[in-house]
Amino acid sequence: MNICIKNGFIITADSNDTCMEGCVIIENGVITYVGSQESAPETAADRTIDACGGIVMPGFVDTHTHVPMNLLRGYADDMALMDWLQNSIWPAEAKLTGEAVYWGSMLAMAELAAAGVTCFSDMYNFNEQIAKAADDSGLRALIATAVLDADGQGERRLQKAAELFDYVKDFRRVNAAVGPHAEYTVSPEMFVKAADLAAQKGCRIHVHISETRGEHDDCVARHGKTPIGLLHSLGVTDLPVMAAHCVWVSDDDIAVMAEKNMSVLSCPGSNLKLGSGIARVAKMLEAGVNVSCATDGAASNNNLSMMEEMTLISLLQKGVNQEPTLLPAKTAVRIATINGAKALGLDALTGSIEAGKQADIVVIDTSGIRYCPKTNLLHHLVYSGSDADVALTMVGGEIVYENGRITFGDINEIKAKASEYAEKLFSA
Amino acid sequence: MNICIKNGFIITADSNDTCMEGCVIIENGVITYVGSQESAPETAADRTIDACGGIVMPGFVDTHTHVPMNLLRGYADDMALMDWLQNSIWPAEAKLTGEAVYWGSMLAMAELAAAGVTCFSDMYNFNEQIAKAADDSGLRALIATAVLDADGQGERRLQKAAELFDYVKDFRRVNAAVGPHAEYTVSPEMFVKAADLAAQKGCRIHVHISETRGEHDDCVARHGKTPIGLLHSLGVTDLPVMAAHCVWVSDDDIAVMAEKNMSVLSCPGSNLKLGSGIARVAKMLEAGVNVSCATDGAASNNNLSMMEEMTLISLLQKGVNQEPTLLPAKTAVRIATINGAKALGLDALTGSIEAGKQADIVVIDTSGIRYCPKTNLLHHLVYSGSDADVALTMVGGEIVYENGRITFGDINEIKAKASEYAEKLFSA
Repeated sequence: MNICIKNGFIITADSNDTCMEGCVIIENGVITYVGSQESAPETAADRTIDACGGIVMPGFVDTHTHVPMNLLRGYADDMALMDWLQNSIWPAEAKLTGEAVYWGSMLAMAELAAAGVTCFSDMYNFNEQIAKAADDSGLRALIATAVLDADGQGERRLQKAAELFDYVKDFRRVNAAVGPHAEYTVSPEMFVKAADLAAQKGCRIHVHISETRGEHDDCVARHGKTPIGLLHSLGVTDLPVMAAHCVWVSDDDIAVMAEKNMSVLSCPGSNLKLGSGIARVAKMLEAGVNVSCATDGAASNNNLSMMEEMTLISLLQKGVNQEPTLLPAKTAVRIATINGAKALGLDALTGSIEAGKQADIVVIDTSGIRYCPKTNLLHHLVYSGSDADVALTMVGGEIVYENGRITFGDINEIKAKASEYAEKLFSA
Repeated sequence: MNICIKNGFIITADSNDTCMEGCVIIENGVITYVGSQESAPETAADRTIDACGGIVMPGFVDTHTHVPMNLLRGYADDMALMDWLQNSIWPAEAKLTGEAVYWGSMLAMAELAAAGVTCFSDMYNFNEQIAKAADDSGLRALIATAVLDADGQGERRLQKAAELFDYVKDFRRVNAAVGPHAEYTVSPEMFVKAADLAAQKGCRIHVHISETRGEHDDCVARHGKTPIGLLHSLGVTDLPVMAAHCVWVSDDDIAVMAEKNMSVLSCPGSNLKLGSGIARVAKMLEAGVNVSCATDGAASNNNLSMMEEMTLISLLQKGVNQEPTLLPAKTAVRIATINGAKALGLDALTGSIEAGKQADIVVIDTSGIRYCPKTNLLHHLVYSGSDADVALTMVGGEIVYENGRITFGDINEIKAKASEYAEKLFSA
């Protein structure tokens, strides 16, 4: 199966941030050519996609999600964090079943595909159902089993985490990771066990770090160390760590994160909505930390729009630092694409449009009012566009969304099933 | 002409924040009934609009725009403010002509209508062209002539400002205001003259206030008073004042603003993007100040999405104050609708869905993924929706946008003309 995407304004997100007019040729799911149409090799395309001058860019990489929480969208807003968790989220989650998780995840797959997201990294429970939804949709996924032992269930969860690797091994684009949840729910001993499992499996560690000021300060009071400092002292940071949030990390933490090649999964929208604060992303980037961005779950965002997060992460750094030159548009695009792939350890495979990589590609329709006049399509994408402009999303050369429709299921069935299972969570 | 909008989830934005399922009946542009379908009076509707369970809400009121700047979208981003103004914006603006302003404004009218904005308040030059574009589109508008005398052209501009009142008097929904630009461009003497003109015309004063820290501090150094303090000492605040931005106002300023019934036109997106900062909106609301929100011009935002501003103003206050209960969804809706109408002095006419008011109404399609499950449509609107979901926009009962199309012109002609005139501004 050969595909040619022609007449594109290609934002490659390669190491030079190359943008060009031209075409992308894809053979059996792999990009084989990116460049001008005149210099393109002769290939018999099974399908030609005309971008009509629109943007052709790498798919977004959403590095921190809890996809089943799509069921809880709008269920508990405008609430203080602990009230939100204890009185709304946890009681609803206690009623979750595998089927509910599957349909909530399928709703998220549809939302992600429609928003141009080709790859996501999740942390939750019922991970086999999440993995199945990812595989059924065709999206690329890194799925971490949440491991916590504050409730005495640590060993059982660690066992589940280990089993997930076997479960996903025949799936096309799904990999497993280990997710020690956070310092306030995981004992130091369990962090070490989780790290041992990750080392044994050669996988990534996905962890919540310093999301709220209280959590950060409590850790310092408990251990005399910040959450990053604690992980460092336990040797966890010798493994590849994906650290979600990092709103309250100290300057020393940032130095450790840079030295240990940790990746930040920044969730600017969720951090604002839950009142957690604003991460010092510009400072992290300056220190050389790999910063990606993410939507978090739909209970705290409340959608899975990476385009909105990309815009927000740039605007917030300019505004908070009173410096409009920070996080320029091309950096925002990198954060939402290639930096995400790096965070997941998948940058050899995806995250940019370059020959040899998987065809994880989005086509953006730029014929709308918000792209007029066509002064600078890259800037319009970041500062004016909307993911309603996503015309096509493909993963490994397979089209998962086109012309307003997902290709991997019946959206009406997915919405009906998700609504039905959500209803059960909310009932007394 | 009688219209019935049925099967709606009606967000009224009335003084009780009433939300209900039901219908809205409109007779000759005026709302005559809002309530349940069962209790609705028998009326022969010329047209019935089925909202299909979607949201029916007041049109957004965008209280601070520079609509011709749609021509400059994406022209100068990621730049420091003075570099942006002096080296990009002002040189381009120096080449503006009446025709360019008209077509730039028409592009903005199309964008506003498509985004569910039924009323806007502008400050710029070439105001007759802007007024004509507003009238041609059918949108409700309050248009202030920018008055400044730092360049010695104060009297000429004041004359233009006076003439605008005559020019707009036969337009259907266009009113004039006086726009002394800002403390750093307007002398105290000219502020007084502008206020005298506003008093004579019985109109509002539209002014930029404390947008940047530098501007605020310079005013204190120059006059020993903040910009609000200066206006207060000059007696300008005895008239109804619409104060754009107010990012750096002091606690004393906020007290004056509350006492004098000033309205704030907060532009959260523009303030972030230009590195100006984040206005203390929650504090202003607590003090009793009427806060509205606005997009500012497309050169600094870079679109005219009031839905994005409504979301942002809520998220920012929660995040910056680390308090997720601040600016709940219903308050965000008020800020973007009825508070805007109050700012413009038009709240007896528009800004909410109540019998006796003009039918300035938006219908939102809630059949999309981001409104699933249908837990809370009001919350979905603020925290999950997108203005791509706007299905219909009407002003005074006249439909200006429906099914993806504006009704007041040929969008392809508008885009082509706007692009052509933009090109001329950018050429050497």
